[in-house]
Amino acid sequence: MKNFELRYGGTKLYFGRDVIRNLTRHLGGIRQAIIATGRNSARLSGALDDVEKLLKKAGIDYKIFDRVKPNPTVDVADDLAEMVWRESSDCIIAIGGGSTIDVAKVSSIIALNGGCASDYLKGMEIKRYLPLFVINLTHGTGSEIDRYAVLTENKSKVGISARYPNVSFDDPRYLSTLPEKQSIYTSIDAFFHAYEAVTAKSTNPFVETLSFESARLIGENLPKDQSLEEKYNLLYASMIAGISLDMSPAHIVHAIEHALSGINPDLPHGCGLAIVGARSIYWIHKHSSNSQRIIEELTGKKVRSAEIAEKAFEEFLEKVGFDEKLSDYGFGKDDFREVERIVFEELNYFLKRIDFDFRREMLRDILERSL
Amino acid sequence: MKNFELRYGGTKLYFGRDVIRNLTRHLGGIRQAIIATGRNSARLSGALDDVEKLLKKAGIDYKIFDRVKPNPTVDVADDLAEMVWRESSDCIIAIGGGSTIDVAKVSSIIALNGGCASDYLKGMEIKRYLPLFVINLTHGTGSEIDRYAVLTENKSKVGISARYPNVSFDDPRYLSTLPEKQSIYTSIDAFFHAYEAVTAKSTNPFVETLSFESARLIGENLPKDQSLEEKYNLLYASMIAGISLDMSPAHIVHAIEHALSGINPDLPHGCGLAIVGARSIYWIHKHSSNSQRIIEELTGKKVRSAEIAEKAFEEFLEKVGFDEKLSDYGFGKDDFREVERIVFEELNYFLKRIDFDFRREMLRDILERSL
Repeated sequence: MKNFELRYGGTKLYFGRDVIRNLTRHLGGIRQAIIATGRNSARLSGALDDVEKLLKKAGIDYKIFDRVKPNPTVDVADDLAEMVWRESSDCIIAIGGGSTIDVAKVSSIIALNGGCASDYLKGMEIKRYLPLFVINLTHGTGSEIDRYAVLTENKSKVGISARYPNVSFDDPRYLSTLPEKQSIYTSIDAFFHAYEAVTAKSTNPFVETLSFESARLIGENLPKDQSLEEKYNLLYASMIAGISLDMSPAHIVHAIEHALSGINPDLPHGCGLAIVGARSIYWIHKHSSNSQRIIEELTGKKVRSAEIAEKAFEEFLEKVGFDEKLSDYGFGKDDFREVERIVFEELNYFLKRIDFDFRREMLRDILERSL
Repeated sequence: MKNFELRYGGTKLYFGRDVIRNLTRHLGGIRQAIIATGRNSARLSGALDDVEKLLKKAGIDYKIFDRVKPNPTVDVADDLAEMVWRESSDCIIAIGGGSTIDVAKVSSIIALNGGCASDYLKGMEIKRYLPLFVINLTHGTGSEIDRYAVLTENKSKVGISARYPNVSFDDPRYLSTLPEKQSIYTSIDAFFHAYEAVTAKSTNPFVETLSFESARLIGENLPKDQSLEEKYNLLYASMIAGISLDMSPAHIVHAIEHALSGINPDLPHGCGLAIVGARSIYWIHKHSSNSQRIIEELTGKKVRSAEIAEKAFEEFLEKVGFDEKLSDYGFGKDDFREVERIVFEELNYFLKRIDFDFRREMLRDILERSL
């Protein structure tokens, strides 16, 4: 388990055990910080405690904003931004998974550029970037190394190219308190970043190098009771899938999931992806030559047809202990029309990222088989 | 053959066919440029012509410095720097392989910070960076994406952490005029960047992901009469090996080659690496678990011992048509003492990058078997 540093995009990333101590190097000029977190994981994981100690040692005043929830709405980003602005803080330190990181990205933009989250979801120009530090607590988001943020507005999830964090920290120690379900959900999220990136029109050799390796590592390391080394590997797999996603964005699996968890925010993102994933793979596989290789890397099986790819993914989910369905989250056939409207109208930009015609009957087929 | 963009380290890289047209985006504020090249390849490849057209179209005045030679000395970097400084140029545009790029890196530092190349080889602080654009013409150097530069001073090669290019261009079209020998030499150079990076103490999962893939692609695409797609793959393999090298530097194979081509500058760098490579692999293989995987990726063969690894590499060289020896470049046993002195005294910092004790008798064994 090697520690290493990587500069990708606009982010300097520290990866490995105890890397948080490098935060100190980047605190020059910081007088006041806002720490953004959710309710529990930052404290449970020990990350918040580590950060507070470093800030105190550096004589930096800070306040904690702990109101980020999964599938966060624009209001939360606006509230955090207002706190940062009123305190005239010099940076945001996000400690959490994708929701916390994404909120912090958008709030760091609002705080310096004005307006509200909704403006930036609509494409308002970003002129300035408040320093943003990220301590990542899941092995799924990739948001610690990519420039994307996803927020919910009026029950619709909107993804934007927001900004890179300035400095990010991936420490596998902080994953030891991640509940097993979350571990599965977030790794499935990472897998679909890798999978959708290589099956998008925008795939390229670098995306393929990273995505295939990511899938291989998830396949090898996800199954139950992970050691610290397995967590390290899953975190690494998630990080490189984040680079893949940054270069080649997600498409139909994420679009469907965004529609679903926009309607029911209690559906965790990775869980939604896992539920609709197998049948989505079936349709994507028919049109993408990269689908075969990446499913083979994940499952270790030869995958010669769309049917076999779907089945191999289902068996993988079974092996890791995932067996949820859309009906577990209250979805029924009555919701399909609304999902269809969101996917084909609000999120139709996702569908332009693939080089085949994703049709309404394919979506209905995916939803029906995921009930 | 996809075109793509990548931001790694301090470099924005454009990769693919005709990507040079993106140079225009980065010329804002540039009034005067110096183009640094060697004698032939910039013109032969068509790259110089493409750059001149873009500069003329943008109304940018430029001068050409075409005196860079293989295994360049500090004088050349000083001369180029003086030209840049006297012309008060706003940037350097390097068009060439590793020699040209490395000279341009150091000259861009001297031009703005003063002094001479020798000062920076000794570690003088770098405060400012003149914009540096790189059009890479080989599939070996990696220098278009890494921060290193190697120059020769008093017959000794010195490698320093100089700077990243601001913007680099990797276009496989420019490789079509690369002589076959150069194609072999430069790919062997790329391979040893990948090989030494994963067998160094500083290896990490990202280095391994990229190095293994690089070796696999070199093994598949190097053998003779490459199509444009094979050249694209070799260029990509070289670029990602450059990232590996940037994160985990080269050690004994490069140290020995630097000693040799310091003594005889007519020995091309990649050729020197190929000559001493097989027996160096034998010794490294005994101490590094990553050696097996990377030789297997390169050769497609199972490699269960140091002897088999050495042999597999020799067979690979044979397959690509490489059969040179140290004696072809005038080396004899009389030179061994001087090589030993350079490796163990001047370049001993290379030897600290591995976690085994590289001994003098190992070096003598490598040299003897390479005669």
